[in-house]
Amino acid sequence: MNIKAVLVSLSLFVLSESVLSAEPNPSPVEERVQALLAQMTLEEKVGQMTQIDFSVVSVANGQDAENPVDQAKLDDAIFNHHVGSILNTPTTPNNRAQPIEKWRNITQSIRDTAARSRLKIPVIYGIDAIHGATYTQNSVLFPQAISMAATFNPELSFKEGEIVAREVKASGLDWNFSPVMDIGRQPLWPRLWETYGEDVHLAQILGGAFIQGHQGEDMAAADKAPTCLKHYVGYSYPLNGKDRTPAWIGERALREWFLPGFEAGVLAGAPSVMINSAEVDGIPGHANYHYLTEILRGELGFKGFTVSDWEDIIRLHTRDKLAASPREAVKMAVMAGVDMSMVPFNFSFYDLLLDLAKSGEVPLSRIDEAVARILRVKFQTGLFERTEPALPVAGYFATAEAVEVNRQAAREAIVLAKNDNRMLPLSKTASILVTGPTANLLSVMNGGWTITWQGASEELYPKQYPTLLQAIQRKTSGRVTFVGGQRFSDEINIEQAVNEARKHDVVVLALGEKPYTETEGNIDTLALDPVQLQLARAIFEIGKPVVLVTFGGRPRIITEIADKARAVVLGFLPGMEGGAALADILFGDVNPSGKLPISYPRAVNDITPYDHKPIEAYETNQYRPLYPFGHGLSYTRFETSGLSVKPAQIKAGDSVEVSVKVKNTGTRTGKETVLVYLNDIAASVSRPVKQLKAFEKVELQPGEQKTLHFTLTAQAMSFIGLNMRRVVEPGDFKVMVGDESVPFSVLPN
Amino acid sequence: MNIKAVLVSLSLFVLSESVLSAEPNPSPVEERVQALLAQMTLEEKVGQMTQIDFSVVSVANGQDAENPVDQAKLDDAIFNHHVGSILNTPTTPNNRAQPIEKWRNITQSIRDTAARSRLKIPVIYGIDAIHGATYTQNSVLFPQAISMAATFNPELSFKEGEIVAREVKASGLDWNFSPVMDIGRQPLWPRLWETYGEDVHLAQILGGAFIQGHQGEDMAAADKAPTCLKHYVGYSYPLNGKDRTPAWIGERALREWFLPGFEAGVLAGAPSVMINSAEVDGIPGHANYHYLTEILRGELGFKGFTVSDWEDIIRLHTRDKLAASPREAVKMAVMAGVDMSMVPFNFSFYDLLLDLAKSGEVPLSRIDEAVARILRVKFQTGLFERTEPALPVAGYFATAEAVEVNRQAAREAIVLAKNDNRMLPLSKTASILVTGPTANLLSVMNGGWTITWQGASEELYPKQYPTLLQAIQRKTSGRVTFVGGQRFSDEINIEQAVNEARKHDVVVLALGEKPYTETEGNIDTLALDPVQLQLARAIFEIGKPVVLVTFGGRPRIITEIADKARAVVLGFLPGMEGGAALADILFGDVNPSGKLPISYPRAVNDITPYDHKPIEAYETNQYRPLYPFGHGLSYTRFETSGLSVKPAQIKAGDSVEVSVKVKNTGTRTGKETVLVYLNDIAASVSRPVKQLKAFEKVELQPGEQKTLHFTLTAQAMSFIGLNMRRVVEPGDFKVMVGDESVPFSVLPN
Repeated sequence: MNIKAVLVSLSLFVLSESVLSAEPNPSPVEERVQALLAQMTLEEKVGQMTQIDFSVVSVANGQDAENPVDQAKLDDAIFNHHVGSILNTPTTPNNRAQPIEKWRNITQSIRDTAARSRLKIPVIYGIDAIHGATYTQNSVLFPQAISMAATFNPELSFKEGEIVAREVKASGLDWNFSPVMDIGRQPLWPRLWETYGEDVHLAQILGGAFIQGHQGEDMAAADKAPTCLKHYVGYSYPLNGKDRTPAWIGERALREWFLPGFEAGVLAGAPSVMINSAEVDGIPGHANYHYLTEILRGELGFKGFTVSDWEDIIRLHTRDKLAASPREAVKMAVMAGVDMSMVPFNFSFYDLLLDLAKSGEVPLSRIDEAVARILRVKFQTGLFERTEPALPVAGYFATAEAVEVNRQAAREAIVLAKNDNRMLPLSKTASILVTGPTANLLSVMNGGWTITWQGASEELYPKQYPTLLQAIQRKTSGRVTFVGGQRFSDEINIEQAVNEARKHDVVVLALGEKPYTETEGNIDTLALDPVQLQLARAIFEIGKPVVLVTFGGRPRIITEIADKARAVVLGFLPGMEGGAALADILFGDVNPSGKLPISYPRAVNDITPYDHKPIEAYETNQYRPLYPFGHGLSYTRFETSGLSVKPAQIKAGDSVEVSVKVKNTGTRTGKETVLVYLNDIAASVSRPVKQLKAFEKVELQPGEQKTLHFTLTAQAMSFIGLNMRRVVEPGDFKVMVGDESVPFSVLPN
Repeated sequence: MNIKAVLVSLSLFVLSESVLSAEPNPSPVEERVQALLAQMTLEEKVGQMTQIDFSVVSVANGQDAENPVDQAKLDDAIFNHHVGSILNTPTTPNNRAQPIEKWRNITQSIRDTAARSRLKIPVIYGIDAIHGATYTQNSVLFPQAISMAATFNPELSFKEGEIVAREVKASGLDWNFSPVMDIGRQPLWPRLWETYGEDVHLAQILGGAFIQGHQGEDMAAADKAPTCLKHYVGYSYPLNGKDRTPAWIGERALREWFLPGFEAGVLAGAPSVMINSAEVDGIPGHANYHYLTEILRGELGFKGFTVSDWEDIIRLHTRDKLAASPREAVKMAVMAGVDMSMVPFNFSFYDLLLDLAKSGEVPLSRIDEAVARILRVKFQTGLFERTEPALPVAGYFATAEAVEVNRQAAREAIVLAKNDNRMLPLSKTASILVTGPTANLLSVMNGGWTITWQGASEELYPKQYPTLLQAIQRKTSGRVTFVGGQRFSDEINIEQAVNEARKHDVVVLALGEKPYTETEGNIDTLALDPVQLQLARAIFEIGKPVVLVTFGGRPRIITEIADKARAVVLGFLPGMEGGAALADILFGDVNPSGKLPISYPRAVNDITPYDHKPIEAYETNQYRPLYPFGHGLSYTRFETSGLSVKPAQIKAGDSVEVSVKVKNTGTRTGKETVLVYLNDIAASVSRPVKQLKAFEKVELQPGEQKTLHFTLTAQAMSFIGLNMRRVVEPGDFKVMVGDESVPFSVLPN
């Protein structure tokens, strides 16, 4: 499927009711699944549902071995426990990227061993290939999801999916625990950057494109691999902002904001779903029958398998106190709808589930259902036919073409938020002081899930990629001075920075966050580190023009600094090419085109998304972030005009055609994303003031104009009604693009 | 009913199912209601459902008149529009407290006019008598609810209810829009201080005691008055912390934390309920049939009437866009279950509802239902029999006894949070610098709803009450110097404060918030005003011992200051006696006994209540507020011991008896509140790590020991189960008091 076909299919998301109508005819895959299932012992079935960490089958010091597989342990796992899946890197808990040949050795041992088992059922090897095959050394590591979202470019997301799948497969690996389809509306959450931001439509399109690039039309193809939708559902919205803490989401809000990303992922063909580690409205994700079975299966029509998150089944006992014993926890999770357990350090799940099945407490029908789902994916992805790594390394891994796509993604991901008096682009002869804790590190541009879990091991980063400082040095003939440390935590000599600032034309002040993910990234305040604020204040005092650059996964509060800076460039997590791409923009070799996929808050306790309710912008209440969703400047100017919506009246269920002209009225070639918003003016449930329903990114020469066409379907006009079902209500709507707004009406049927 | 009987009745809250079983027999009141209803025209009925602001019947400049009623306007309201209720003060929108005789004149005019109407149906006059009859000059103004909660003393709350009802009735007024039964779990919310804090049980007991004191056993008694439970339901938990913005509360969380306060209020006999101005899960409070009718009537068994909040019905159209017209808004609200509309500035509700009723769009049965509910309360409260103010002023208004109760409440409301090396009490000969913006104002100790809506008009405050500064000056023979302004916003000369600090033994640093309520009190950060931080830092630099005192409605972040202060006294909003009571504590004339009714956060984005889930205190996550719920020091020491829970095993539905000894092991007489917590160790829904289920405050002499007895009922052991119904599940429980913990089990039936 090419990218055009992807976009058409993604724009045709239909009402969830109709998802249920398509039941596939019995296929060869289905016949193979049933035939195999019929031959399996209960032990073999329970084993398929068991996923273990690589350390369980590894020699003690796997870091140094060419192939760290401990064959005796592997034999035990496969022949005695029949494990269906293995995950993670050889060196848990200090996991890190490995050479690609080592990965090919490891996975070959596993393939070979499984081929010697009674039924020769392949093991599926899963990996967190977040923003690239991060645990394979020298893989192409893209902008993280929040930055991919900032590109507003589904073609780039599709290509990222293609490249990541290739690099996973060239590593001998099978299955990618990506993408995150959680919606990023809680800026404190330390995994915000793993999401496509606060908007449902943007996440659907970008995530859907990634999945389709990753999986292609046939997941069995050598260069394609199955994805995994994370983390079903509501995980991204912890009330207090801490990772793995409770979300309070009413069922209507869940269906409006959190389910649609997963719905899009299911429609795009993702064959696996990973479960929310925390809880929603008092029910842990792994015990939630309503979400895992009634909604995911019954409503979304998901046919693949679900996998627990790390240790999360036993945590129903040890942490959540939902289950009185580990055994009850296994029963609870499996009966709620968990098909595979990421145990991962032992065979306790296998032992307990076997016992529960033998006693009849977990019916065989439920075991068969789960195993069939897992086997189906193994057949669909061609694992049974695979006797060696699907792809060679050369020509498929870290290719020049892939690096170029990555560079382009980073360029389009960076957001120019402020540019007073055309401060940017900088002259290539200007003398520049570069300072700040994020100026000379690759890790701060990559974030978590880079080479290591936390992404903070700067010493392991490949030296060929420039930091921001190095990229600036390469780009300019002017004098470049750096005042800063070797690590994020190094104290910066403020006096020295101020003295140097006096001697230079301009200061590039690079602030932000260190890398992190999950609970390690929890914070108690969205405020910027006070030390950074101190450095900034000292520099502003001398009056030299300052370009503020930020890197990091969350919108830390920069209001005071941004107000004083002449230009503000928001980098978020642009990946390995981030330094180069940011320098391309600073010096004008690239015209910035990124737009914010989130509302950038002005103050620590002022968190309101763009698609808020009218009551949130009424009288003294208002939506006034530092930068709104969709904000992003260019070195040229764009104007939209001539917005048209036809017909002016439709029946519920019909679509309207929207067209609008967009023109480059400036003097440079550039890319602009045209955003089409919809407002349902009156409804039986309060509706957001506006919602993004379509967008397109176009490149325009100076003076060039294009007319863009969009279709807004009934899906776009629908919402979750009083009865919790999706509905299009008759009444007045309003389409908004730029400064224009055009109404249309849905007539009563 | 005396306070002991109240406490017994409040401790016997039963499962909500059983609330439904008691249907009263037809009573004389019911006969009178039906007989009157049968005589009423449709216009008279719709009028009963209409509540207008006093300005609608007032002369233009009511501020200066002895009786500002405009008789022609009043005749029109009563004879032509048959209004059932009037609210608010004579000078809206610049409302303010009035002389009591003026109130008696106004209400007498209304009574007299209503007596001349066709059916002589009395008008019920409602007033926001928050923490006292605030709109009557010189009324006794108590600590606000958050501070009453800090007393942990239901007897004081009961007495407050008695006194407020008397002062309302002596003013000629009929009905009090109090208490707030919302739960205060969102510290940003500018009405947090109107709640009894974050704990359900504490709010039930304190709010229930207030209602029973206010209403007595017979609401028709001259010195009793009906209360109004606010603001049903979920209003207190805006996601973004701003007043009147959406709450996201799943139905289980709603039933666990937000409904029980209202359930207690209904059981305590409150005959009216005011509705949430905002929305929960996409449905505005005023359009929520499920909450207003299915739950409030069907489950909680509420028999009284509901009243909208200010202008909130038309806002379903103008603000929420739920209704396509004002007419549809009226229909929507009335059909959802709103019985009376606080319109309040015109007769649009009357006109529109009349039209809707005539056209049959609102059935007559619904009108009759609403009107019967309103008439019932008018009969129950004796309004039909009242021809003049129920009470004289002398002996009932601002009595010495009432003032003494208020003083005692303020003393018990103040929380001593830190007292390193017995910094307090201060010597009465010490020289003291008093500084900070809250040191010399009455308004900062009273908050909103004091004399005016926002409570900020310091010039209107009665001069006989001392500010903190004045109270300190009266108390000590030492030199007292004040550095500060005349208003909260006045800049304080930091240099002067530091210079004076050097010359004194100790600094009393009074920080906090200015008065506010509703949207006017919205904030974007929980951080303390930076100017206050600056003052504090400058003073700490010179090393003099500092006693930090805070006033204000919210727990603004004081971590840095509290760490450096030798003593910390949290005043919240202790009312008119706050200055005197605080000085009593500072100098040791009173031994402090207040405890925190909320968790006091350590950082702006670290908001976790004490009754959080295990997952919120797991691995790197933790509950670590600056001061936990229930924290509060004394000048003596208390120890609890010998915790006993009997029997060790019970059947679901049975109770356990808890006893524990508490001893004063220090050298001063003091009061201690013993807190009894329960933990349900494993359940089908994740349960809080602990929940307060009982408490008792006792006074003990040095060396004295008492044994306290508590009964934990099935209600205490119950929670909202998977099916959204309240359930007691068999399994292990744990009772915790102080450092002790004793298990018991509920056996399967």
